[in-house]
Amino acid sequence: MDERFHTLAELAVHGANVQPGQVVALGPTVGQEELARAIAEAAYKRGARFVDVAYFDPYVKRARIAYANEDTLDFVPPWYANRLVTLGERGDARIGFAGIVAPDVLNGLDPARLGRDMLPWLKEASKVIDDRSTNWTIVPCPHPAWAKLVYPGLDPDAAYEKLWQELWHVLRLDEPDPGAAWEQRMATLKTSAKNLTDCHFDRLEFKGPGTELAVGLLPTGRWLAADFETRNGLWHMPNIPTEEVFTTPDPTRTEGYVTSTKPLVLKDGAIVRGLKVRFEGGRAVEVEAEENGVAMQSKVAYDDGSARLGEVALVDRHGRIGPLGTVFYDTLLDENAASHIALGNGFPFAVEAEDAERVNVSGIHIDFMIGSPEMVVTGVTASGERIPVLVGGDWQI
Amino acid sequence: MDERFHTLAELAVHGANVQPGQVVALGPTVGQEELARAIAEAAYKRGARFVDVAYFDPYVKRARIAYANEDTLDFVPPWYANRLVTLGERGDARIGFAGIVAPDVLNGLDPARLGRDMLPWLKEASKVIDDRSTNWTIVPCPHPAWAKLVYPGLDPDAAYEKLWQELWHVLRLDEPDPGAAWEQRMATLKTSAKNLTDCHFDRLEFKGPGTELAVGLLPTGRWLAADFETRNGLWHMPNIPTEEVFTTPDPTRTEGYVTSTKPLVLKDGAIVRGLKVRFEGGRAVEVEAEENGVAMQSKVAYDDGSARLGEVALVDRHGRIGPLGTVFYDTLLDENAASHIALGNGFPFAVEAEDAERVNVSGIHIDFMIGSPEMVVTGVTASGERIPVLVGGDWQI
Repeated sequence: MDERFHTLAELAVHGANVQPGQVVALGPTVGQEELARAIAEAAYKRGARFVDVAYFDPYVKRARIAYANEDTLDFVPPWYANRLVTLGERGDARIGFAGIVAPDVLNGLDPARLGRDMLPWLKEASKVIDDRSTNWTIVPCPHPAWAKLVYPGLDPDAAYEKLWQELWHVLRLDEPDPGAAWEQRMATLKTSAKNLTDCHFDRLEFKGPGTELAVGLLPTGRWLAADFETRNGLWHMPNIPTEEVFTTPDPTRTEGYVTSTKPLVLKDGAIVRGLKVRFEGGRAVEVEAEENGVAMQSKVAYDDGSARLGEVALVDRHGRIGPLGTVFYDTLLDENAASHIALGNGFPFAVEAEDAERVNVSGIHIDFMIGSPEMVVTGVTASGERIPVLVGGDWQI
Repeated sequence: MDERFHTLAELAVHGANVQPGQVVALGPTVGQEELARAIAEAAYKRGARFVDVAYFDPYVKRARIAYANEDTLDFVPPWYANRLVTLGERGDARIGFAGIVAPDVLNGLDPARLGRDMLPWLKEASKVIDDRSTNWTIVPCPHPAWAKLVYPGLDPDAAYEKLWQELWHVLRLDEPDPGAAWEQRMATLKTSAKNLTDCHFDRLEFKGPGTELAVGLLPTGRWLAADFETRNGLWHMPNIPTEEVFTTPDPTRTEGYVTSTKPLVLKDGAIVRGLKVRFEGGRAVEVEAEENGVAMQSKVAYDDGSARLGEVALVDRHGRIGPLGTVFYDTLLDENAASHIALGNGFPFAVEAEDAERVNVSGIHIDFMIGSPEMVVTGVTASGERIPVLVGGDWQI
């Protein structure tokens, strides 16, 4: 095995903060075996009770979308939820895998049928996250097919090496002590988050090419960095890498239109390019895209909350992903290159109890990138004061 | 994908008799993706509600045996049993995968630690089988690593082709209508089984090189071919290929000693060679082997029933596996080349209700081959009459 997988695995179990005696649930795709095995080894060495690797096979999903009876496409076996809910009840650890293995596997399928099968995403995931019952992280897994997608001009070996190099850099694995490097970066992000919270904005306004959007915020909303604690006080980093500060907005007060600035890859692998969404009264009332618009519309129609915002996140230009200029076709990476919003489930833990009922609820959570160097983000207070927040990717507060 | 996987997949869904609306649970090992995907496609085309593929990764198991804390090695996450029990409650379909993917993956591990982790085997599997609640089958999956183990003298491509050819033959895929060919073979096996049942033997005696064994039978025991019905009357072939007739013996009346005639591969991949077992009063009191004897001893010590017989099976010389002379290092194939016995769980469905309580109960079921051309099998009735059953591999009854 490539020794780098072991180094990446060490960062993953550090970020998930795997504890002795925990079950560690891994969610790789078939093709990510090397990292799964390296993480299993690292987790057992930290004292894990059991490492439960549930491989997802997108080719089996393809067979379903292509051939299953129409009325079965929403079905999810009850033991899928049982696993996730039990992990939450036990207070176990979870490590998700980002990155692409088979970019073309779902090509040519009926987008409406595709949109009905949300797997590997489970609607119970939102509750487990909201409950803060598991310590978890998501890490990217290098793969030659991913590298080919990201660097189409390079030969396959060079592309794979470049993917490793860029991920190595953004994961801060090129630092003498990656854990300490992340601690330092998180301190900066937590300061930005605190500054934003202290401004008590009523809404944020985004203005840039193809975008003129106002996002209402909740009165007790807090801005956070991806540096979490479980309800039992266990620190973990839900995303590695992370460069964002984020909060959960008022789902009834988004107005205007927005154009995505990077492609968005849905959980099922469909790549949505050139997404344009218009909001009225918090709802996405028009959704179109240059590519895979129907698949995206199907997600937005998933449930009551799927057409409303659950997240708004700001990314400055000092993170390590944006400066690369690389489109990774993967939300974990791309969302940390640019400011973004997410349709679907919000974060009750980002507001006080009095606003918890106002946070958006949905079985989906789909981030898409709206930030760019031209984007100006302005905060507006309840009294109407307008305060610049991000200009040219630099914090103004 | 090699088109032959699609042909094999068709036989698998035929043998499991997948019904419209059923969940179909597949149990491949990582490395058997092509067959898993082909079966998924075939099952969806037959109207399956969902195909649930649970890949087992033996390299993750290796990490566990190598690094996990001693006191965690028996742990199985509760959602593993939940999946299997729920499949049974729902009356779903199951397709297991035989064949080897990584023959050396567990080499060099502590056999005592290895023996404590039974996965991917679950103790709940016995109950699901006994309840006849699911329609199921097991089919072999060709793999280059398996071919290399079976034909070490051939170059890798030739070995893989030879494995395909031999499996193609024993799976009767070389017949114009494989389903019909199996129907015909099963008719022969069911006749042999009926003849044996009608003899009402009190015990069988096995005599051959290294073996002098008496296996007591239960008064209402029936001999069966691997041609099953679920409790709801759904036909299925639990093993493809199959050449055996079998029953469940009296677990208190095995006496003598027996030497295995082919290697036995444990569920975790350890190959047990030269196994010798001595029985007293039905119990295996001495277990030794030329290779992996400790792993085998650990299985035999698993629970109260694991040292007693749950199955005795006879294989004539007219099946397609024995004549090849090939050792496949896989129980599904090798057990159908020769008469065999199994330690562990028995089959309540092979006796009348009055004897059901006498059938052996265990969380394990481990077949090992004892038949050979030199083996003479004699039936002894309650009145002491001795009737030849198998001589030189030919039925005498």
